[in-house]
Amino acid sequence: MLVLGIDPGLGCTGWGVVAKAGNRLSHVANGQIRTDPGAAIAERLVTLDRELADVIARHRPDAGAVEEVFVNTNAQSTLKLGQARGVCLLALARAGLPVSEYATRLVKKAIVGTGGAEKAQVQAMLKVLLPGVKLAGADAADALAVAIAHAHIVRN
Amino acid sequence: MLVLGIDPGLGCTGWGVVAKAGNRLSHVANGQIRTDPGAAIAERLVTLDRELADVIARHRPDAGAVEEVFVNTNAQSTLKLGQARGVCLLALARAGLPVSEYATRLVKKAIVGTGGAEKAQVQAMLKVLLPGVKLAGADAADALAVAIAHAHIVRN
Repeated sequence: MLVLGIDPGLGCTGWGVVAKAGNRLSHVANGQIRTDPGAAIAERLVTLDRELADVIARHRPDAGAVEEVFVNTNAQSTLKLGQARGVCLLALARAGLPVSEYATRLVKKAIVGTGGAEKAQVQAMLKVLLPGVKLAGADAADALAVAIAHAHIVRN
Repeated sequence: MLVLGIDPGLGCTGWGVVAKAGNRLSHVANGQIRTDPGAAIAERLVTLDRELADVIARHRPDAGAVEEVFVNTNAQSTLKLGQARGVCLLALARAGLPVSEYATRLVKKAIVGTGGAEKAQVQAMLKVLLPGVKLAGADAADALAVAIAHAHIVRN
């Protein structure tokens, strides 16, 4: 089973694909989709949609897992994040993938064993769980983490 | 010039198409897209995307106008609205339409003459500006209003 994890963001969306065979996990690919901060939001969403569709076409995952959003106190930031997140959920569902959402704390618990883990701890565990992985960045790491959390939680 | 106005919402998205020829405005169509509150959010976004694509294919507008969101104090509501709004902006831009965004106050000012107008005043003016129009509902009315605001503001 191939799981595509996504950490949505308007400026930068992380993605990561892991393969699960029985109890074995392995890294397939990870990356980050950046959009031009100087472009109109609608254009930025088109870029995100197109690049996500490309990732899905290239890796043909069996399931999608998306990090639940940390809803912060700045409503404009929440709105921007929501717009990017809507496009991510749509891209997965439109491709016919089952979509699961996981809270950040649950993802951290699945990777490190505690919901309060630091980002650095999560990234260190990723390198243990996915030997040889090269992380494209912090958002790609978060995306791989949510993909692994999904792989741990579902039975295939 | 045909303008498609959209008032985004996860539960109900209003849309309305107006035609502008010189200084004359006329009503083309309006409607509301509802999504199943019992369905997963990704599925609801797929429904919204599919129905918006259908509206665009049927009416072939030249421009899209979207109401700027009233960002309320409930972050979860803002996030939901953002997700629906992202899908609306994407649908317009993906179809190659220029997308403009208008604050609610600006829309009201363009229709009624004052930014603090009540919804009922806006709907009454819509019936004057678009004789014979039958409003599919309050969200469709808001969508027609933003389409008219765009038609008033741009020169074609």
